[in-house]
Amino acid sequence: MAGIKSMDGCNPILITQDDTVRLLDQRLLPQREEYVRVDTVEDVAGAITDMVVRGAPLIGIVAAFGLYIAVRNAETKDEFLRLLDSAASRLASTRPTAVNLFYAIDLFLSELKAKVDLLELEKLKMKARALAFTLWDKQKKQDREIGRHGASYLKDCRRVLTHCNTGTLATGGIGTALGIIKTMHEAGNLDMVYVDETRPYLQGARLTAYELSMAGIPYRVITDSSCGMVARKGLIDAVVVGADRIAKNGDTANKIGTYVLACIARKHGIKFVVAAPESTIDRRIASLDGIPIEERDPDEVLTCAGRRVAPHDAQAINYSFDLTDGDLISAIVTEKGVYEGGYAF
Amino acid sequence: MAGIKSMDGCNPILITQDDTVRLLDQRLLPQREEYVRVDTVEDVAGAITDMVVRGAPLIGIVAAFGLYIAVRNAETKDEFLRLLDSAASRLASTRPTAVNLFYAIDLFLSELKAKVDLLELEKLKMKARALAFTLWDKQKKQDREIGRHGASYLKDCRRVLTHCNTGTLATGGIGTALGIIKTMHEAGNLDMVYVDETRPYLQGARLTAYELSMAGIPYRVITDSSCGMVARKGLIDAVVVGADRIAKNGDTANKIGTYVLACIARKHGIKFVVAAPESTIDRRIASLDGIPIEERDPDEVLTCAGRRVAPHDAQAINYSFDLTDGDLISAIVTEKGVYEGGYAF
Repeated sequence: MAGIKSMDGCNPILITQDDTVRLLDQRLLPQREEYVRVDTVEDVAGAITDMVVRGAPLIGIVAAFGLYIAVRNAETKDEFLRLLDSAASRLASTRPTAVNLFYAIDLFLSELKAKVDLLELEKLKMKARALAFTLWDKQKKQDREIGRHGASYLKDCRRVLTHCNTGTLATGGIGTALGIIKTMHEAGNLDMVYVDETRPYLQGARLTAYELSMAGIPYRVITDSSCGMVARKGLIDAVVVGADRIAKNGDTANKIGTYVLACIARKHGIKFVVAAPESTIDRRIASLDGIPIEERDPDEVLTCAGRRVAPHDAQAINYSFDLTDGDLISAIVTEKGVYEGGYAF
Repeated sequence: MAGIKSMDGCNPILITQDDTVRLLDQRLLPQREEYVRVDTVEDVAGAITDMVVRGAPLIGIVAAFGLYIAVRNAETKDEFLRLLDSAASRLASTRPTAVNLFYAIDLFLSELKAKVDLLELEKLKMKARALAFTLWDKQKKQDREIGRHGASYLKDCRRVLTHCNTGTLATGGIGTALGIIKTMHEAGNLDMVYVDETRPYLQGARLTAYELSMAGIPYRVITDSSCGMVARKGLIDAVVVGADRIAKNGDTANKIGTYVLACIARKHGIKFVVAAPESTIDRRIASLDGIPIEERDPDEVLTCAGRRVAPHDAQAINYSFDLTDGDLISAIVTEKGVYEGGYAF
């Protein structure tokens, strides 16, 4: 697959001329770059459930291609509608907390059902295919806008720290927080990226490092607990992270470890920037106080790269994200622009 | 070796009736409890260099037994002195930054050379053996005192977080910070210990968890970056850590990640306690500003449990410790008692 890599850089979804869809298996990165071919909606659902792909925006785009794959062999309009509905419900069950997944499904159902009496079957299939590409293109444009606004805001910062993976492997575009970093690099305004390894799943050491390597951006992996020392030594000008959910007051839920970074950034007078699409802002909730914190399998903590490290009877707590107060966040960057403090969405 | 375990709990050094010395191989813990037999000074030096044993106080005690092993087969006083000197220089080269190692060597050289004309050869050998046991006993008593003072200071705290390994596997006694925790448990004043896994070497998930399991103390392993969320959820009353070096003003160098814990503890009004022997206080230095920070092999960060996780061309920074300002430390506990803030050693 070396040819694919040299054509496109990091490419989490690959559609070849014969309309075959392949997904880059993120579980094997960075050691192996292998694509999984998905020919049925069941293949796509399995790939989402089994974490071949991850990252809410990317899951949405992959689900969209899954819906297209489901209907592309329909022989009648009735079959088209039946396959569409059954694919929608199958895909909805894969990762029930991924907002973008439901956005993609709703988009397909409403757009295609509205057209089913107006277009002939082959046109409907082309429409489904176009919807998937349009969703992907929209994400790419959105990421570019976030990157542009963020790089402008951070124009005086040449050394940044980031957490988890918020790049192409998470969104299908250039990424959110990592998109800002790539945009800074393109503008010649970046000297060094410090990459938190992001235990337990190591999205930083594995995926962000992989993307930065491919982009030729200088970086150093550090353990998560090194952030304090890196700040203390004056090595960073800004911390840039993504977000899973943002409340009206700017309170942000994001990958575990984000809150520690915000506290360290505040202590050292370093800019702390959250990058996310507008859709991440949940205007229905005033703050994140008291919202439930998802816990994942403790075995992720008790093992390291697949090997058990803790005693056989050890127990662990594996919070998958933490909460950062809006007042610790210097700026929230979306595709619309930069919000600076005093958040009231 | 099950019998050994049930007799003594966690026992990093084992001396059997036939005077054979064995060291618990900490590199294999907690998955395997294997003892390495050390019959020569070269065996002991190798065990220290190869990290069969670790922890500055334990290294000192093991070196003392190494010196005894070196001289116990001497056939003349001349040979005794020659073997003593060559063992001292061999052991001094193993871990050149471990203060306790040099203390043990100096103790042996001064005590035994002062006695060489006064005692017969067999008595000299017995003296060497006794010196090693005395050093170990002194450590055990010192740890007990630290534990007693610390548990008294933390009498209203039932849920603590600790970092790295500061227990029996580090000192040969009950430990420093972990000794306080064990003492709290013995007094029935402990509900839960949160154990930072302590990347990259995983001393928390591997060694501290092992000791707590053996002692029947309830604990949960967490990733290092979870400390913020654990504090935020109100799960901990105190953070207790060890120290590698303490300056006159209380500034403390300790395992990477300590500084982040101190910042989080301060932010949440949680007690932050440093436990260490008096000998850790370096009264020659006013503060730790500008002292060099040791960096270890970047491969420790780029691998996880022995497996490469980062891209082949990735680079890493691996600070082995960080610096915590004295004014972030609620109390420093030594064998002499509890120092509370406003440090002026």
